[in-house]
Amino acid sequence: MPALQFSIQQVDSASAARAGTIVTDHGTIQTPIFMPVGTVGSVKAVTQQQLNADVKAQIILGNTYHLYLRPGIEILNKAGGLHQFMGWHKPILTDSGGYQVFSLGSQRKIKEEGVTFQSHIDGSRHLFTPENVMDIERNIGADIIMAFDECPPYPSEYQYAKNSMELTHRWLDRCIARLKETPDLYGYTQNLFPIVQGGTYKDLRTASAQYIADKNAAGNAIGGLSVGEPEAMMYDFTALCCEFLPVEKPRYLMGVGTPWNILESIALGVDMFDCVMPTRNGRNGMLFTSKGVINIKNKKWATDFSVIDDGFISNISNYYTKAYLRHLFAADEILALQIASLHNLSFYLWLVGEARNQILNGNFYAWKQEMVPILKQRL
Amino acid sequence: MPALQFSIQQVDSASAARAGTIVTDHGTIQTPIFMPVGTVGSVKAVTQQQLNADVKAQIILGNTYHLYLRPGIEILNKAGGLHQFMGWHKPILTDSGGYQVFSLGSQRKIKEEGVTFQSHIDGSRHLFTPENVMDIERNIGADIIMAFDECPPYPSEYQYAKNSMELTHRWLDRCIARLKETPDLYGYTQNLFPIVQGGTYKDLRTASAQYIADKNAAGNAIGGLSVGEPEAMMYDFTALCCEFLPVEKPRYLMGVGTPWNILESIALGVDMFDCVMPTRNGRNGMLFTSKGVINIKNKKWATDFSVIDDGFISNISNYYTKAYLRHLFAADEILALQIASLHNLSFYLWLVGEARNQILNGNFYAWKQEMVPILKQRL
Repeated sequence: MPALQFSIQQVDSASAARAGTIVTDHGTIQTPIFMPVGTVGSVKAVTQQQLNADVKAQIILGNTYHLYLRPGIEILNKAGGLHQFMGWHKPILTDSGGYQVFSLGSQRKIKEEGVTFQSHIDGSRHLFTPENVMDIERNIGADIIMAFDECPPYPSEYQYAKNSMELTHRWLDRCIARLKETPDLYGYTQNLFPIVQGGTYKDLRTASAQYIADKNAAGNAIGGLSVGEPEAMMYDFTALCCEFLPVEKPRYLMGVGTPWNILESIALGVDMFDCVMPTRNGRNGMLFTSKGVINIKNKKWATDFSVIDDGFISNISNYYTKAYLRHLFAADEILALQIASLHNLSFYLWLVGEARNQILNGNFYAWKQEMVPILKQRL
Repeated sequence: MPALQFSIQQVDSASAARAGTIVTDHGTIQTPIFMPVGTVGSVKAVTQQQLNADVKAQIILGNTYHLYLRPGIEILNKAGGLHQFMGWHKPILTDSGGYQVFSLGSQRKIKEEGVTFQSHIDGSRHLFTPENVMDIERNIGADIIMAFDECPPYPSEYQYAKNSMELTHRWLDRCIARLKETPDLYGYTQNLFPIVQGGTYKDLRTASAQYIADKNAAGNAIGGLSVGEPEAMMYDFTALCCEFLPVEKPRYLMGVGTPWNILESIALGVDMFDCVMPTRNGRNGMLFTSKGVINIKNKKWATDFSVIDDGFISNISNYYTKAYLRHLFAADEILALQIASLHNLSFYLWLVGEARNQILNGNFYAWKQEMVPILKQRL
C-alpha cells in the first residue's frame, strides 16, 4: 500500500518551522502536532469522545511494551487492531517498546539479538527483537510504527553511545527487512519511522541522522533526547538532527516536552511531538495555561472563581473555575484528574494549532518569542 | 418565593405508579426520576458535560456533611452556592448530613440539641443541629433540602426506634421554624422535604408518615430503609409510608437502590430515588444493564467485542465493548471508572425514563413484571 504522504504548506521565513499535512489511512494530521499518550489503549482519564470533541486530538500514541503485556497481541488481533479495540478511528503511532524496556534497568539484558526483560506486572520473562517488535506493532496496527532502538541514558560514555547507536542501526535494518517480508494488517498501511540516536556527541548524532536519512522512510524521529540533559543541549542536538533529516519528511521529536520546549523545537524544524507531561503532571495538579504554569493545589486558588484558562476556546478550560478544580484535588476526586488532563491536553493541542496558524500567517517567530516567557512563568 | 410545584400526568391503573413533573427554580424534573449522587460537588468520575449530554441527569444530589467539610460553607457562599461552584445549573437536592454523621459510629454523639461528631478527614470536632444544618443547606443552595433526622440502624429495638423517631419529629419542627426565620439564598427557593422514620415497626412508621404528611411540605421522603433489612420488608414499609404520604406531593425513597428495587418502588408510588450503587459498584466493575448484571472483571468478557449495552441509546454504552472495558479494569486505568460510571448512570436514567413512558402508555405494571427478572439475572 502507499506510504503516508507529507506535504508542506508553508515554511517560516525567520526559523525552520513549517506547517504541513500528513495523510494516513486513518485520516489527515495537520502539523506541527502534539500526540497525546494513550499508554495501554487509553489516554489516561480521557474518553475517546472527549479526545475528539474537547481535546481535538488528531493522532494519539500507544506504547508497544504496555499493549504487548495487556491486553496482549492475541486480543488486539482478534479485535482487528488497536483502533477497533479502543474505538479510536483517527491515526495512531506506536513506539517500539525500546524506551520502556530500557527503563526497566536491572530487569532487562541487551544482546545483539534483542532485549530480554521481565514484566513489571508479574515478573514473567520476555524477549523483544527487531523482528518480533515489528510483528507486534503490525498487530497493534498503528499507522506509524517506530523502529526498535536502544535509548542510552544521559550521560553516556562516548564508546557506549557509539556501540549503542551502531546496534540501533543494525536493528533498524532488521526492522526494515522484517516489514518487507510481512504484509500490512487490517487493510491499511503501517509506516515505519526510524530513530536517530547517538547520545550527546555531535559526530555520532550526525552519523546517525545521515544513516537514518538514507533509509528514505516515510518520516523520521529523533530519540534519546529529553532524558535529563540540559534544555540548551536538547535544542542544540535537535537542531543538528534536523539539519540532516530530509526536509520533505515529517520529523518527530520523541518524548518532548513542555509547551516552551515544543515551540522552540517547532522553530528548529520539528513537526511531531508526544509527552506524558500534560496528563501525568496534570494528574499531580500542574496546569499548563496560555498565561503560565499553575499549581492548582496551592491554597491561593481556593477562592479564585475565574475559569482555568480563557486564552483559547474550550468546553472545559473556559467552564470550570480554578477554585472548583482546586477543591476537587483537595477532596481527592477523580474528576480533578479528568479536568486537569482535559485542560492540559486541550491547551497543548491549541498551542500547536496556533503555532501552525502563525507559521501560515508568516508571524511564527515573533509570536514564539513573545509566548515562551509567558508560558514559562509560574502563576 | 413559591415552593416547587408537582403535577401528575398519569397514574398507573394496575399499581400506584405515577408519571409526574416537578418544577423548580432550576428547571423541570420528570418523574419517576433517579438522582445521581454528587457527594462532594462531583458525581464521581463524571464531568458536568457528561452528566447533561450522556447521563441525561435532571437533578443530582449533594451531601451536606461532605460539602460542609470541603470546600466548606464560606467558599460555597462566596461562589454563589453549589450550582455556581460546580457549574451544574439544573436542580440539586442536598441530604441533611444526618445519615453520614450517624455512620461515623463512635465518632459521634446524639443529644437533644443535635449531634457532635469528628471529621473523618482530620478528626476536628463539629456540631450539627437542626438550625445550623438548615443554614448550611441554604448556603449550599440546593433546590430541595432535606430535614435533619436521625436514621436508626437495622435492626433497632422498639424503644430506640420510637425515641429516635420522636427526636426526628422535634428536629423537623426546629428545621421548619429555622427556615421560616431565614430567607432563601441566591434568588431561588430552597424547599424542605421532611423524612419519615420509625424503623421497621408498623405503628411507628404509620405515626411518622402521618406526622410528616401533616406538615404540608412541598415533598416528602422515606428514610431509614435499605439499611440492611430484607428486600421484602423494605417494600412493605415503603408501601405503608406511601399510604399515608399525600398523593399530590412527590415521594422520595432515600438511598434506594438496585434497578429492580427502583421499579418495584415506583409501583408502590415512589417518585424520586438516589443511590451510590451505579457509581460505587460501577467503580468496582459491576455493570447494571438492560439484560442483567455483569461483573466486567470476569475473564469471560476478555474477547467479547460486543458493546456494553445495546438495549437503549447511549454514546457510551453503545460505543465501548465489554472486552475493552474489561481490559481497562485489568490495567487499572481511570477510564475504566469513567466508562462504568457513565454506563451505569445512563442506564439508571434510561430505566426511570422508560418507566415513565410505560406509565404514560398504560403498560407500566406488565412491563415492570417482565423487566424485574431480566434486570436481576447475572450474565
